[in-house]
This record gives sequence, structure tokens and C-alpha cells, in this order.
Amino acid sequence: MATVAVLSIGNELLKGNTINTNLAYIARELTSRGHSVVAAMEVNDNEYEICSGLKYLMGKAQCIITTGGLGPTFDDMTIRSISACLGLQYGSNPEALELVKGRLPRNAEMTEERKKMAFFPDGGVPIPNNVGTAPGLYLKHGENVILSFPGVPKEMEPMLISSIDKIPASSVSYYQESVFLEGIYESIFAPVIERLMSYYRGRVYIKSHPKSDGSNEGFLEIEVSSYSRASDESKALVKEVLSQVVKIASEMGGSVKYPGKDSGI
Amino acid sequence: MATVAVLSIGNELLKGNTINTNLAYIARELTSRGHSVVAAMEVNDNEYEICSGLKYLMGKAQCIITTGGLGPTFDDMTIRSISACLGLQYGSNPEALELVKGRLPRNAEMTEERKKMAFFPDGGVPIPNNVGTAPGLYLKHGENVILSFPGVPKEMEPMLISSIDKIPASSVSYYQESVFLEGIYESIFAPVIERLMSYYRGRVYIKSHPKSDGSNEGFLEIEVSSYSRASDESKALVKEVLSQVVKIASEMGGSVKYPGKDSGI
Repeated sequence: MATVAVLSIGNELLKGNTINTNLAYIARELTSRGHSVVAAMEVNDNEYEICSGLKYLMGKAQCIITTGGLGPTFDDMTIRSISACLGLQYGSNPEALELVKGRLPRNAEMTEERKKMAFFPDGGVPIPNNVGTAPGLYLKHGENVILSFPGVPKEMEPMLISSIDKIPASSVSYYQESVFLEGIYESIFAPVIERLMSYYRGRVYIKSHPKSDGSNEGFLEIEVSSYSRASDESKALVKEVLSQVVKIASEMGGSVKYPGKDSGI
Repeated sequence: MATVAVLSIGNELLKGNTINTNLAYIARELTSRGHSVVAAMEVNDNEYEICSGLKYLMGKAQCIITTGGLGPTFDDMTIRSISACLGLQYGSNPEALELVKGRLPRNAEMTEERKKMAFFPDGGVPIPNNVGTAPGLYLKHGENVILSFPGVPKEMEPMLISSIDKIPASSVSYYQESVFLEGIYESIFAPVIERLMSYYRGRVYIKSHPKSDGSNEGFLEIEVSSYSRASDESKALVKEVLSQVVKIASEMGGSVKYPGKDSGI
């Protein structure tokens, strides 16, 4: 299991024009493969802040994934910032330039702005982008692996999947499922959760989320998850704990509103 | 104008089960009031990571807004973590306890878990929660202001608005509007944006976003924004720049796909 951190770059995220759905997508894909996302950060299009955030996250995680700032405009500065931040030479990468050329519309000129999308740090390897123009970056730097993708989700998503095996391999799998209870208050059920987690000694993680469907009576999601070496094992363990949760809840006067829901991870 | 940073707390954000819409909401509300959101971070329910993130963001911004981790369960640890991180005494706050009591359903017991929602740092002032149970926290610490809200959006949103004047006042307003162009490539238009920004000498900020509506031909959003002392002034300036953008684009063979759109900020 690799530890991973996500750095999302773009003024639109900190003005609130764009909701950072990329973070949730990346986190789901990595969690389901047994990796652990330990921190995430959003920064503006600012070389100093990109470097500051990158260094913070490199101290937290083995692998850093960045999104945004790979395009042709002056405020697309992710790869330049990473290069300067890590003290790496930055210049035109022949392989990246071929990728950019291959994505240009017929008769389109190779402008300075387009050339910029092929500027990479020494040691950087381009990741093909089959939807947009700007290639992504794969960079090994000491103990860290850095992967940089565009911010447009339909470009980022296939690029993440195509390069996901560049993240140090994991032999751990993850399973998660929820049950939805009614007639039970979160604060009343809290000691039950603590007892169950202590009984299972860290092999499962249980979390409650109060929910509402708009009616006066709220309900309670109990989410159970487990990491394990064998995926059958984590699933069986989660199912076992969920049946305990339902049994104890009904003894306390609660009932199941919706049955167990595999959260799709 | 205050500088603001947002710390979003909760495992669900870094597993990808929850999209961090709170960040976008907070960023929009603050930006529209002339504040500047300079950084944001997501961390897991982990006392050490909460403290580490808090300290990082306190070095970046005057005001820190946290979301999540105020509830009754063992993994709700935001206020305890902030208190420990800043070396503040942490204990039951009489005013907060009254707020919690006032929100309990009739005949509900005051359990240890519910009492915990009234545990505050020395100097902390509770913010009423008229939707859920857990009060928010307002804390002045040296030069910094910390505001902590629940993670549930329908609780957080009214609490943010009700306490927004605790953020150091701003005499700056912000206006933003976009125009959508077709027949123009982002990389071709990039030098135009640079020239316009340089002509207006930092009084406007122009950003391009390639967009797609699912057809083969993409289009280009040009977003123009401005901070100014008088809100009329920033609006007039943005309108002037947008008309320049449309004029230059049409000289280059492009056209307007959708007219100017006030982004609602």
C-alpha cells in the first residue's frame, strides 16, 4: 500500500467556481486499489504556493498526484513550478513534443504556447493524453513519485487509470459497505461503535454519518470498512460487523431503513 | 480583504466517498465578499494531521475555516485537536452546553458523547447550530481567527453566513463574468490574454478554460475578474475587458457561442 497525497492546482477551486470532483475520483480509485490517501491540498495558480504545497505533501506521502495547470496559457505553471521547486533542469522534452504535435488539429501552428506543453523537468516522462493536448508527467524523485495530470476530468480520468501502475504496488485490498438505521441517535450509538472497533482490534473501521431524506426524522448511516491482504477476507469481515451492528441496533429499538449498501468501491 | 484558508476534516473526503462541496461553497461566499482564499487542505480524522494542516494554513492566512469533526463520535476530534495543537486548555464550555441541551430531542439523555460536543478551548466562543446539534467554534488566537463548522452542508452553510462578520472586514469587492467563444484555440488566444492583462496592469485577471458540450468542436470560456474598492468599478472594468475579448476574437475568426455570463458571484 502506497501513501498518496493529491495537490489540486487552480484559482477556480479557491474562488469556488469549480467543485473539486477530481479529488474524490482519484481518492476512490486509489482507495479501491488498497492505497491510502493521507492528505490533499488546493492551491492557486502561483509558483510559490505550488512549491510550498508540494513540499508539504512530499513529507506526508510516497506518491503525489497533481491536477491542473498543464495547458498552454501563462497561468498553467504546474510543471515549471515542480521543476523549479525540486531544483531540476526544465526544457523541451522530445517525446512530449511529439505527443503534443500528434494531438494538434490538422494545419494548426506549433506556437510558443503549444511548445510550452512539452516543457518537462530532467528525468520526467510524459504520459499520453488521448482526449486533450497536454501530456501528463511521471517523475521519480528520490523516494517520491510525482504524477501530474490536466485538471479537466475527462482528460485526467483515463490518464490516471492508464498510469496507475506507476504508483508503487499494493498487496492490500479494501472493502466498504454501509447500513442505514432509523430510530437510533448517533450519540447513543457512538459507544457501540467504540466497543465493536475495540473488539475487532483495528481490523475494521466503523463510522457513523447522520443523514436526512427531507422528512423530520433523520436516519443514521453506519459505514464499515476494512483493509486486508485478501479481498475475500475484508469483505467477509465487513459483512460480519454489519450484522452485529444491525443486531445491536434492533436490541436498542432501532431498525434498518435501507439494507446494506456496497459503496461501489 | 482578509486572507482565508479552509481545512476540511474527514476520512470520507480522502476515500472519495464525499465530494468536498463545502470548500466551493465557502470559497464562493468569501470571494464574493472581497476576501481571498489562499489555500485549502483535506485531512483524515487524525489529531496529528489536523494539527499539522492547521499550522501550515495558519502560516498562509489570517482566518482559518474548518469543516467536519464536531459531532458526538470518537472520530469527531476537530476541537480537541485544535486545542491541543495551540496549547489551549480544553473543557466543558457552559454556553456551548446550553446550546447542545437546547438542540436535544425531548426526553433525550445528556450522554457523555453529547456532552463532548460542548468541549471547547479556553477563549473559544460557540456558534449556534439551528439545524443540527453540535455548535461551531469561533476562536481568536494571536493574529489568526479560527472558525469551525460541522461537515454537513445544511448545518455548515447557515452557520458560516451567520458568523461571516467575524472574519476581519473587507473594503474590497469582486466581480467576475465569462464569455464563451468558438472557433478559437486556447493556445492561439493565450498571447491575447497576456497582452490584455499587461495593458490593464493587474487590475483584471483573465483566465481561459477549454470546454466541451459533447460535440466534436470544443469551445473556450474566457473568464474575466476584478477586485476593486467600489463594486461598480470592478463590474465596469470586467465588462470593458470582455468587449475587447469579443472584438479581438472576432478579428481572429472566432465568434461568441454564449454571451457574457455573470458567474453568479
